[in-house]
Amino acid sequence: MEKQYRLLIETEDKQGLIHAISGVLLRHNLNIEQNNEFVEKSFNRFFMRTDISGEPDEAALMADLRAVLNDDHRINLVPKKKKRVVVLATKEHHCLGDLLLRHRYEEMDIDIVAVVSNYDTLRDLVENFNIPYHFVTHEGHTRESHEEALLETIAPYNPEYLVLAKYMRILTPRFVGAYSDRIINIHHSFLPAFIGANPYRQAYDRGVKIIGATAHFVNNDLDEGPIIAQSILPVDHTHNAVDMARAGKDVEKQVLAKALRLVFDDRVFIFRNRTIIFES
Amino acid sequence: MEKQYRLLIETEDKQGLIHAISGVLLRHNLNIEQNNEFVEKSFNRFFMRTDISGEPDEAALMADLRAVLNDDHRINLVPKKKKRVVVLATKEHHCLGDLLLRHRYEEMDIDIVAVVSNYDTLRDLVENFNIPYHFVTHEGHTRESHEEALLETIAPYNPEYLVLAKYMRILTPRFVGAYSDRIINIHHSFLPAFIGANPYRQAYDRGVKIIGATAHFVNNDLDEGPIIAQSILPVDHTHNAVDMARAGKDVEKQVLAKALRLVFDDRVFIFRNRTIIFES
Amino acid sequence: MEKQYRLLIETEDKQGLIHAISGVLLRHNLNIEQNNEFVEKSFNRFFMRTDISGEPDEAALMADLRAVLNDDHRINLVPKKKKRVVVLATKEHHCLGDLLLRHRYEEMDIDIVAVVSNYDTLRDLVENFNIPYHFVTHEGHTRESHEEALLETIAPYNPEYLVLAKYMRILTPRFVGAYSDRIINIHHSFLPAFIGANPYRQAYDRGVKIIGATAHFVNNDLDEGPIIAQSILPVDHTHNAVDMARAGKDVEKQVLAKALRLVFDDRVFIFRNRTIIFES
Amino acid sequence: MEKQYRLLIETEDKQGLIHAISGVLLRHNLNIEQNNEFVEKSFNRFFMRTDISGEPDEAALMADLRAVLNDDHRINLVPKKKKRVVVLATKEHHCLGDLLLRHRYEEMDIDIVAVVSNYDTLRDLVENFNIPYHFVTHEGHTRESHEEALLETIAPYNPEYLVLAKYMRILTPRFVGAYSDRIINIHHSFLPAFIGANPYRQAYDRGVKIIGATAHFVNNDLDEGPIIAQSILPVDHTHNAVDMARAGKDVEKQVLAKALRLVFDDRVFIFRNRTIIFES
Repeated sequence: MEKQYRLLIETEDKQGLIHAISGVLLRHNLNIEQNNEFVEKSFNRFFMRTDISGEPDEAALMADLRAVLNDDHRINLVPKKKKRVVVLATKEHHCLGDLLLRHRYEEMDIDIVAVVSNYDTLRDLVENFNIPYHFVTHEGHTRESHEEALLETIAPYNPEYLVLAKYMRILTPRFVGAYSDRIINIHHSFLPAFIGANPYRQAYDRGVKIIGATAHFVNNDLDEGPIIAQSILPVDHTHNAVDMARAGKDVEKQVLAKALRLVFDDRVFIFRNRTIIFES
Repeated sequence: MEKQYRLLIETEDKQGLIHAISGVLLRHNLNIEQNNEFVEKSFNRFFMRTDISGEPDEAALMADLRAVLNDDHRINLVPKKKKRVVVLATKEHHCLGDLLLRHRYEEMDIDIVAVVSNYDTLRDLVENFNIPYHFVTHEGHTRESHEEALLETIAPYNPEYLVLAKYMRILTPRFVGAYSDRIINIHHSFLPAFIGANPYRQAYDRGVKIIGATAHFVNNDLDEGPIIAQSILPVDHTHNAVDMARAGKDVEKQVLAKALRLVFDDRVFIFRNRTIIFES
Repeated sequence: MEKQYRLLIETEDKQGLIHAISGVLLRHNLNIEQNNEFVEKSFNRFFMRTDISGEPDEAALMADLRAVLNDDHRINLVPKKKKRVVVLATKEHHCLGDLLLRHRYEEMDIDIVAVVSNYDTLRDLVENFNIPYHFVTHEGHTRESHEEALLETIAPYNPEYLVLAKYMRILTPRFVGAYSDRIINIHHSFLPAFIGANPYRQAYDRGVKIIGATAHFVNNDLDEGPIIAQSILPVDHTHNAVDMARAGKDVEKQVLAKALRLVFDDRVFIFRNRTIIFES
Repeated sequence: MEKQYRLLIETEDKQGLIHAISGVLLRHNLNIEQNNEFVEKSFNRFFMRTDISGEPDEAALMADLRAVLNDDHRINLVPKKKKRVVVLATKEHHCLGDLLLRHRYEEMDIDIVAVVSNYDTLRDLVENFNIPYHFVTHEGHTRESHEEALLETIAPYNPEYLVLAKYMRILTPRFVGAYSDRIINIHHSFLPAFIGANPYRQAYDRGVKIIGATAHFVNNDLDEGPIIAQSILPVDHTHNAVDMARAGKDVEKQVLAKALRLVFDDRVFIFRNRTIIFES
């Protein structure tokens, strides 16, 4: 029976690469539904995402593809399907509520298998969508022991991605390392402006005329991971910091949804702390 | 010596097409700098734009490419260079002035070889940029005889494209046919809203909260040709029709510039009254 | 005890009007928190919205205000509070879900007292938010008898506004007249483009590069009522009509939420099929 | 004969202020064409901009207005007319060219009386618009002696505003102090992101998905003055730093034009390093 895949390749660029790769796909009798390529010239690095359909012998296909690539490559054959996701939240509902609706009505390829929070505030919202809710308090814990409890709570769900839907605590390298390149955060500013705490307060103090939000992968430097999506909202002198925060919520949830859609469609490559995104 | 081209192909889709085309390019020892493909599935139609560099025997390359395509195809090998353009205007300066600056400072691949207008208003502006200005009045002319005079004025310049930079007269099929798919117009509304005369008046009367502009290829149905680019501007109750028209000028020149950049970079295919545009 | 009001005045413009009105407010010992005025010059019409706080004798205040206005005026003293709203829906969840979350978390001054639908599809979603859901089928009904059933279902809730959150049926003048200037609809196009059915299909067919949504008051001419808010989304050749519809959902719910926030904050005047909106 | 003014008032807020001010205007038989007020509550500060027309005894009007305001106030009665402007540039033409066209065609209330540059590059462009061009090299000068030469060149023109249209040198407090709150700069980033040199390089390195530009008043802290207007442009992985810089030029000139229109229409108040802007 015919199946659908995304083939993701990153490798050193060389003449004839597209010809060689497309030749392998042809020999395996696969259809190319859509194809995107990009060469990062400064680093002579080739990226390709291909929507393919067919009935391949997956192991043989991968072996044949590897044979035409240079040694320094990454290759991934991803079946087209929903991603298993655990959402982390604190007390704010707006990003979480939006994701729960999109999960329920299948508006993106997300399968939220659990929500974990360091407060119990959002339990009703989550359980009304028939999704398990885990309250893992940070009170009386060191950061390390709290994260240990989080990891233990999350592990049985075996998620492909963690989504921080306004999870308001800093994560240690140990936690981040456990889900490397698989944690997505929404930051409530137009990064790199207003890094750190209270970005809307900072924005108000600076008198900006536009505020924004940034969805990014989490790495060990707070607010410094690869950016996936950003969007903005005009503000004016009638907005104080509280008004900006309120208005910002809508942008935050839009940007997070956009970023997740891109990631879960396997459209995002990470390369040297930047993202390469084949949007369409 | 190495040269740069854009290879543009439109053909019936079939398995192995990318492999076959990239094989021809490889055999001619050409480098693929960038590559974009799209399949319009409803019509099983394949579109490809490839930035290539090398020293091909152009005739042999074209023959080899044609050999791997189905009979029903269009293929074009365009050297990367500025496009020869005649601009038509009436009395408004804003789009024209913007293009003259971009021409002078080489901000896009445009070579404005002449400006033709049915008024003498803009002569000084144009001649200060050392570009020939032709005043071809429509007064005392039928539409047909005026267009005849226009065509005679334009012909010696042998332009690749005509740009209507707020040329406020309707063109007949005969004129349009002389430069088929090569005339680009800026319409001062968010098409298809407010087709026809006085779109800002119409917009005001309808009480819209957003106005826009549309750059499109001209065909025989007024305001109905393939759309290349559109952009918008928020307005509110304090804008009357005159204010909207003033505010709209900035959008008009931005949209026209964007559309011309896309067309002159050979990024735009026309297919069944729509455009397929490889933006990046 | 101090109370908060919005004072809304529409009247013929004349010299000294602001002085006279502000004098009345001063004599009643009211604080002006914020003040917006606009004069529609073509019609010599004055509009004012004032946030006031204090402990007025409401009847005396209104009498004193009327005394300084010309005969041809409208005046409204609205206590600052949530608006009672009945939402009408059909089968689509995206606008409704967004409003239910905003209701639950008090993100706007909305109090959804019931949801009425001509399908039973959305019952679970609504009831999980502890809001009454009424399924009023149109099957086996004439348009008139169906609307009669709707009106009877709605009447006991005594709503200040009806919100059509993707209610996909045309309303008769009788129904509209029962809630004149109090029905708000979200239309899935950038009106006045693509009036009527299947706007995304129409948008695809025309090859537009931007799609949009429009929130408007409903009057007797379908899709012709006063526009409150509009927003847009870029699209390209990779979007077919189905993709446009999916992408458009996010814009629809954003625009509807924006419009409702403006209306429920008493910021919107209707005048001659246009809106005058004091946004801040 | 009737004249048109903008009356600008900043003062401590108190009950009855609008009533008192509008009373003075009424006694002087002035028409209020448009009126905007704002109260910055954290500082109890009142701002008002009023478009008035009439034939006032200006001195008497000002005296009467001052009599109703608290001691701590600023008041300004500005005749509606074009502002005298000297533009400073370096080598980049795009903002300057745009302003020259707007000056020539009276698209904003700007009267460019001279252009001063530390290079001779832009002379032809400027002189074609019949505007004096002064080349004041910085070579062989200390910063102080160069600025002295600039000030001597500018002084005879007695400008109301200086516009830095991509003037790429830092100004000393002495220079800034000579035109306090009257120097407007365009910065090629979305401030406060990417302060300092090479913002597009910084933007590329950070992998942002949106770039921007910021028009602001200049004060003694580089890139820290009150922001007037900001706008943005989406970018993606196909943009390197050079592409971003090229794309950014269009945003820069749009934002600068927008900011100047606001300032020259007397719509901008500066208060505590923020701007209060009555946009309409």
